Amino acid sequence: MSVENVCIIGSGNWGSAIAKIVGENTARHSNVFQRNVRQWVFEENVNGQKLTDIINTQHENVKYLAGVPLPTNVVAIPDVVEACKGATLIVFVLPHQFVRGVCEKMKGHLAPNARAISLIKGLEITPQGTRLFSEEISRILDIPCAALSGANIADEVAREKFCESTVGCTHVADGQVFHKLFDAPYFRINVVQDHVGVQLCGALKNVVAVGAGLSDGLGFGSNTKSAIVRRGLVEMRKFGQTFFGDVVQTETFFESCGVADLLTTCMGGRNRKVAEAFAKTGKPIDQLEAELLNGQKLQGTLTAKEVNEFLTARNMVEEFPLFTTVYRICYEGLDMHAIVRDI
Amino acid sequence: MSVENVCIIGSGNWGSAIAKIVGENTARHSNVFQRNVRQWVFEENVNGQKLTDIINTQHENVKYLAGVPLPTNVVAIPDVVEACKGATLIVFVLPHQFVRGVCEKMKGHLAPNARAISLIKGLEITPQGTRLFSEEISRILDIPCAALSGANIADEVAREKFCESTVGCTHVADGQVFHKLFDAPYFRINVVQDHVGVQLCGALKNVVAVGAGLSDGLGFGSNTKSAIVRRGLVEMRKFGQTFFGDVVQTETFFESCGVADLLTTCMGGRNRKVAEAFAKTGKPIDQLEAELLNGQKLQGTLTAKEVNEFLTARNMVEEFPLFTTVYRICYEGLDMHAIVRDI
Repeated sequence: MSVENVCIIGSGNWGSAIAKIVGENTARHSNVFQRNVRQWVFEENVNGQKLTDIINTQHENVKYLAGVPLPTNVVAIPDVVEACKGATLIVFVLPHQFVRGVCEKMKGHLAPNARAISLIKGLEITPQGTRLFSEEISRILDIPCAALSGANIADEVAREKFCESTVGCTHVADGQVFHKLFDAPYFRINVVQDHVGVQLCGALKNVVAVGAGLSDGLGFGSNTKSAIVRRGLVEMRKFGQTFFGDVVQTETFFESCGVADLLTTCMGGRNRKVAEAFAKTGKPIDQLEAELLNGQKLQGTLTAKEVNEFLTARNMVEEFPLFTTVYRICYEGLDMHAIVRDI
Repeated sequence: MSVENVCIIGSGNWGSAIAKIVGENTARHSNVFQRNVRQWVFEENVNGQKLTDIINTQHENVKYLAGVPLPTNVVAIPDVVEACKGATLIVFVLPHQFVRGVCEKMKGHLAPNARAISLIKGLEITPQGTRLFSEEISRILDIPCAALSGANIADEVAREKFCESTVGCTHVADGQVFHKLFDAPYFRINVVQDHVGVQLCGALKNVVAVGAGLSDGLGFGSNTKSAIVRRGLVEMRKFGQTFFGDVVQTETFFESCGVADLLTTCMGGRNRKVAEAFAKTGKPIDQLEAELLNGQKLQGTLTAKEVNEFLTARNMVEEFPLFTTVYRICYEGLDMHAIVRDI
């Protein structure tokens, strides 16, 4: 039996933390994986040196995960075609806006039996419908694509703070391979078949975190915040089961990608923080994005807007009162106290 | 159709907050309830006055819920037999150690069609088996008994901060009556049939909160804490479904009594706090109880011990690794880092 040839597409903060785990695991399980892991790194100049050269000689991604040694069997490659040539397992961990372009370049260069896994948070939601990034990867490359998501702050994972994560994979045998690729004593993987629920949770949790942040900013106590988080969890599940049917399993919401990631996001995280500032100061969201996030867009409010357009097109806004109330407060000037009055 | 005659047994912090809601609701729903609510109040002398006299003239429980006006239709009564005579709905909200004695006194004085509801957190767990307080009330008084539990810090409820709560009631029609008795714009009630799960959550969450507090005290990040809370939720459900069977519903854990109360307890609360101090200082639990709780016993560690004896008698400690690890750390001197290593 031939061993798996692993390639990682992406090299940001999360991509680097994952490269560390994947490199450790391919070295550990030599009966399953080739030792060397190729990582596609978007080439940048860092203090006069190429980032790929720094990674390959110093074994550290000094720009996106400074201070954490990477395994020496992780090899940074600036050309995506060279990085993925002949790969049998492809780990996608790059910003979602690059998925399509990168996949188009990779087409035709993978091994015939290749399988992918997407670590990209979020999904596309338009009035016409939803599109999971795993589906997009699968469609362009014509290979199966699983998903991984969980309560995983990249820096904590890189520093080997204990956490869990969830792999959603329709094919049971592939799920076992991904378990071997990612599971570590400090990064425990559970595998479920519901790859849809795994990805939905990663997107919708951010809307709930905006609600939780509003609660904090309005000075409500922990009873109130817990009620908002609970209703958020219920609406996340309802959204999945209404629009994706039986493929979305209740069990998924008990996994790390469900309740645990929601918890982390509602306790810390930028969505909660900006929403808290919004409630306290009344400044518009885009001004707060400029002040607090260097102009980056907040995921939770964007997703709330997309979800609202999707629900409006289906005449179903009233059936998701928390999602709808978050949208109306952030975009329609609804009184913030609606976060408890209208849900 | 005759209207319901309501009596509240207990008058501490939570009993007083509940008396406020119940009094408001019996006045509001005069087609369902008699306006006046009798509350059994354990007589105490407060600044030279009887507590029942203070409540009945000043309409405030100055000792246990100072600063919150009580409805004038709540009538404090120092004699439990007089308080419950002819009652059709009895709300139990008193410390668990008094349940048996008080029920014995009430026997034979209730209306023939009386029903009870227990707001008492926890349950008795011994090596021989478990006993829910609703079952104990039901057995002694020979009436059905439902349960109410949720993410409800009494002071926040009394100050009308929005929250939710769960009623577990086997009989659907009785559940509707309890909904009318407790639901308020700031205290939203969901009714489920699973009264067992509702009560189990209220006890077992405290064990999980000890684990969460250890995580805080050891300086772990939010990934780790979320993983511990998630595994706690899963073990709570497994405990219910293993030892009580199908009566314990997965849906119950999505309710306020489940995930929301667990969250509140693991973020704030005394169990979390004492466990954090335990991890930071290494002082024995009983010394911390003396220092931080005026010598009161911590519920979470007690329940962890009871659960461990129960599981040991069934040779099942290994199947509940989080509960077991909390017990071993608190009582057997196990290294605290086992909270991530052994679960």
